[in-house]
Amino acid sequence: MTNLNRPEWSNDEHDTSSYVPGISSTHDGFTKSSRKLFRKRLKEDPSVIDFVESILQGDRMILSKAITLIESNAPHHFEKAQEILGELLPFTGNSIRIGITGVPGAGKSTFIEEFGMLLCERGHKVAVLAIDPSSSISGGSILGDKTRMERLVKNENAYIRPSPSSGTLGGVHRKTRESILACEAAGFDVIIVETVGVGQSEVIVRGMVDFFMLLTITGAGDQLQGMKKGIMELADAIVVNKADGDNKSLAEKTRKEYNQILHFLMPATKGWETKAYTCSALYGNGIVNVWNIITSFMENTSESGAFAERRKLQAQEWMFSQITERLEQSFYQHSEVKKLLPIYKKSVIEGNITVTNAVNDLFHSYFKKEK
Amino acid sequence: MTNLNRPEWSNDEHDTSSYVPGISSTHDGFTKSSRKLFRKRLKEDPSVIDFVESILQGDRMILSKAITLIESNAPHHFEKAQEILGELLPFTGNSIRIGITGVPGAGKSTFIEEFGMLLCERGHKVAVLAIDPSSSISGGSILGDKTRMERLVKNENAYIRPSPSSGTLGGVHRKTRESILACEAAGFDVIIVETVGVGQSEVIVRGMVDFFMLLTITGAGDQLQGMKKGIMELADAIVVNKADGDNKSLAEKTRKEYNQILHFLMPATKGWETKAYTCSALYGNGIVNVWNIITSFMENTSESGAFAERRKLQAQEWMFSQITERLEQSFYQHSEVKKLLPIYKKSVIEGNITVTNAVNDLFHSYFKKEK
Repeated sequence: MTNLNRPEWSNDEHDTSSYVPGISSTHDGFTKSSRKLFRKRLKEDPSVIDFVESILQGDRMILSKAITLIESNAPHHFEKAQEILGELLPFTGNSIRIGITGVPGAGKSTFIEEFGMLLCERGHKVAVLAIDPSSSISGGSILGDKTRMERLVKNENAYIRPSPSSGTLGGVHRKTRESILACEAAGFDVIIVETVGVGQSEVIVRGMVDFFMLLTITGAGDQLQGMKKGIMELADAIVVNKADGDNKSLAEKTRKEYNQILHFLMPATKGWETKAYTCSALYGNGIVNVWNIITSFMENTSESGAFAERRKLQAQEWMFSQITERLEQSFYQHSEVKKLLPIYKKSVIEGNITVTNAVNDLFHSYFKKEK
Repeated sequence: MTNLNRPEWSNDEHDTSSYVPGISSTHDGFTKSSRKLFRKRLKEDPSVIDFVESILQGDRMILSKAITLIESNAPHHFEKAQEILGELLPFTGNSIRIGITGVPGAGKSTFIEEFGMLLCERGHKVAVLAIDPSSSISGGSILGDKTRMERLVKNENAYIRPSPSSGTLGGVHRKTRESILACEAAGFDVIIVETVGVGQSEVIVRGMVDFFMLLTITGAGDQLQGMKKGIMELADAIVVNKADGDNKSLAEKTRKEYNQILHFLMPATKGWETKAYTCSALYGNGIVNVWNIITSFMENTSESGAFAERRKLQAQEWMFSQITERLEQSFYQHSEVKKLLPIYKKSVIEGNITVTNAVNDLFHSYFKKEK
């Protein structure tokens, strides 16, 4: 790869349709060799403008490359990703963002595949992203398994992206939020964010989606008890999966139990009553109903203003949480603080120093070096 | 007030009993005038060592003065308070810290008075502190009303301190935690921290007590629905108050409803089953039972190690939350950040800039000035 200069035909940055690959065109004015060169460059090291134009044309290969930049921890990748996102920003936001959580074994993959296929058939473009709190430890990923969602992955109106496989949960948070924006700019109008019911990930996903759904199964007592605190209160719908065969009546019983508890909880979304439903992802039953619920949720919250209000608050809260994260990063990675913190922590636990004095001393070291 | 020098008889810092006022002694060696001088000094501007010694003797007047210093926002008061706390630290921790929350009207004052009187009768020393999230807005205080707890306030084994009347919730948090330490050093072996069921205050109180109790009343549906999310999951016991007269059977029904929901929730304390009970603070019924539950909780968690483990974690978490608070304070009070933040916030909400770029710009300004 030698020539990184933009060819002359790229000067007109406003008319992008004429030279973006993947769009069939008989009037693009390309010679065979210039097109080949362009494709090669695009494949190996696309420029910011290449990224932007191709993503706006819905190019999934370039979208993947952009998300790889978003997920990269290298500073120059980070900067490039931010430039791209800055350009894409006016084209984002036009989707329904759906969060789906559930314990392992609840059938999330099967559900998302059925659900995604239904939406694609109805003319929607569906992107599936994941936040996997376990991946930062194991390096694995809930969407990493290639055998999952086999049909959906081949559908040209679907885009599936595994969870970022490294970084803190805060980092994964940023990466997923920015990937949502990229997918929206690429024309995906239904974004599904999948997560496992572990740790803080539900709260994080709830903070980036419009509609949050808990997928669960029967065996209520155990399931409910093992569930992370407060998760039911984040949900706009609880869907009891595997309501098929012998399990059907049990699932119905579980649904009723959930409704009983939901009655006592605060609703997750103003003006929307969270209820429990059943479905069978395996047999495709109840999937249409879930989409109907989401459609009705959209209508209801758009009309009341709750939808726009939540998006606004989410943007604000994200900004504040990023600020806190950056501040903490700067503090905890400070060389003196790193050295002193374990010592002070031990003293605090042993009751040899008050917390306030320990913190005072640590800040003295922190600000001394900063100045 | 002219003479702040310590008189010669104060040299022996280990034998404090001989010259601390409020302790009757016939062999203190004081002349009438030196004692008068000492009292005057102690009243007006006690030194750190005066504070420490008097508090260790259980002097409630000096304890109050110390808590006033703890609560003060003036830097020199803050420093003096930290010095005092540093000296008191070895004498802290020997109490059971009990958090009590409940909606207004649940009868918290009546309950705490009955409960406190019972404990005093049994030889305990009881301190009552408050965290009132509304006081930082209104300047008022849940414990500020002098007509509350009339009997307890007069009991020589009790100490009642209203909520700090100003500051952020984070500041109130620090003040209450440090007041707990001061009370413990003064010999109080039961510390009650009262809060109203609003905002984040329950989570904060849960983070500083051993045992957390929700006091509630009948009218379950409304009460439960109006309750802040997740609060039941913080509680080690739920006590339905006003189980008297015509209301008795209703209270019993409410108790059962709570137990039904509790069955599905994660326990707040490892190895301890949270249950609902009834009481009538007005008629003194069921109060002994609450103390029995707490005693049993103490035995259970001390044996299992959960008690010590929680205290250790609380100290750590408090340190980390103080660090974050200090970092945020330094950032948000930075003059450039103050100026730019509203502009960037608006841009983020309107979708004109990515959150990450906005945060980058803000940090650029923040660190530029810091250096």
